[in-house]
Amino acid sequence: MDESETIFWREVALEIIAKVEKAISPLIGKKESGEVIKMGADGTPSKLIDLVAEKEVISILEKISYPILLISEEIGELEIGCESTDKSYIKDTDSKIVFVVDPLDGTSNAVKNIPAYGISLAVAKYPFKKRAPQLKDVKMGFVKNFATGDFFEGLKGKGANLNGEKIQGSDLIDVNNSSMGLFIYGTTFNQIDHLFQQIRRMRILGSVSIELCYVANGSYDAFVDINENLRVIDIAASQLIITESGGKISTQQGKPINKVLNAKERTSIVAAGNEKLHEKLIEIMEVI
Amino acid sequence: MDESETIFWREVALEIIAKVEKAISPLIGKKESGEVIKMGADGTPSKLIDLVAEKEVISILEKISYPILLISEEIGELEIGCESTDKSYIKDTDSKIVFVVDPLDGTSNAVKNIPAYGISLAVAKYPFKKRAPQLKDVKMGFVKNFATGDFFEGLKGKGANLNGEKIQGSDLIDVNNSSMGLFIYGTTFNQIDHLFQQIRRMRILGSVSIELCYVANGSYDAFVDINENLRVIDIAASQLIITESGGKISTQQGKPINKVLNAKERTSIVAAGNEKLHEKLIEIMEVI
Repeated sequence: MDESETIFWREVALEIIAKVEKAISPLIGKKESGEVIKMGADGTPSKLIDLVAEKEVISILEKISYPILLISEEIGELEIGCESTDKSYIKDTDSKIVFVVDPLDGTSNAVKNIPAYGISLAVAKYPFKKRAPQLKDVKMGFVKNFATGDFFEGLKGKGANLNGEKIQGSDLIDVNNSSMGLFIYGTTFNQIDHLFQQIRRMRILGSVSIELCYVANGSYDAFVDINENLRVIDIAASQLIITESGGKISTQQGKPINKVLNAKERTSIVAAGNEKLHEKLIEIMEVI
Repeated sequence: MDESETIFWREVALEIIAKVEKAISPLIGKKESGEVIKMGADGTPSKLIDLVAEKEVISILEKISYPILLISEEIGELEIGCESTDKSYIKDTDSKIVFVVDPLDGTSNAVKNIPAYGISLAVAKYPFKKRAPQLKDVKMGFVKNFATGDFFEGLKGKGANLNGEKIQGSDLIDVNNSSMGLFIYGTTFNQIDHLFQQIRRMRILGSVSIELCYVANGSYDAFVDINENLRVIDIAASQLIITESGGKISTQQGKPINKVLNAKERTSIVAAGNEKLHEKLIEIMEVI
């Protein structure tokens, strides 16, 4: 993705983020926002506030004169963007742009006004004639916590920022002194106890994309999910932000997360602010 | 405590809250704010930002022309307030005013800029010639999340507010559908797994006073600590806010938390937005 493309798609991303934030803001802390309206693409229920957020994403992308693949929590996959008659601006006819969006991560926090909810948006580019889009195709990642205004951004090869300032992961390597975020659905506390007993602090905020960004800026030393519970669309943006901040992210087994980008794909995660801490956590995980 | 006393001490409390917030605000998200300066009264380490916060509390109370007992995390207990020569304004010479303050609950969140940290302040009045102050003597409770601005307030017999609006606990009684906060220090995940498997959502934000207030306004359906880990000074304000919101709070055994107010006293907690949910949780706790 060259510089002019980066600027163009970043602008589209920023517009989506601003419009979604505006659309959901009257719904924060309201019980009716949490009403289940239909089932999402991955089989989890879609709530009113999720659908309001996603509608904004779709309506902006529909106006772009460029074919885009949208992958999102509620709708699954959607070919979108108007086909312009003028194709001259499409420089690379072998590639396609993909928006991977969780319009509102931390829905239940938003409904209950617990200050960890926001958007996760990744822009990928992939050779659509050859293969499906993959996590490694992500070129830009954006995560905004609407409750606090914190805006995380990662650009492949260019580093990661929080509110415009360069960030990097924690340099802590002592597991016993670490603060860690946890994604706990589908897990038992028994399974995670061996890890829990070795660390200093555990947090469960309930918004994975934001909590993974906390690994990127050092608010957390690490973040863990052990049961292939995390949707790839939830981590598409923040995994790039972590990598660009100097942190390390892998599966529970320490392998690269080499997944196809779609609404159903899931993974386990061990993310840490630095390679040494990551290595130690993978060792601990081996006995879980 | 009559109306004029209530108005007077509430003003003092509000001044403390405003001054503490101002004093710590430049220290949020700064690594040096988390440096351990000395050991607190309860044996836990006092960090720079905690001491800055507590200094504000002391300096305001020192100016009050009235003897006060301050109970706080770092200093323990301190007889404070100047003795005025004019005693005529002291209506009740058998009672003493107690400020129970955690100047900064969620210190590590403040240092890491995770949006759940704030002040907890309770005002109690007790017959000091007869006995020690107890939790039941608390007449006013204030909790402010400095990260979000959320301000919780409870006044004995007069209800509870969030940002000036009346609040009440959740009416959810189905344990399987409940969102619950957890205080996990000194516990093993194994111990809590039996409970965890029965609920819908678990949160660990790392600021008990704020999380207990989430029970008062329904953001959480319940909050649990099972191991006598919570300091009475951390819950002095929020336990009143819960009671005044119609919620129920007890020990793990379902008994009233009938504790003396001092810096070392600890308790277990089961708090819920309503009595029925509370009762069900106590039943579940019996087998833990």
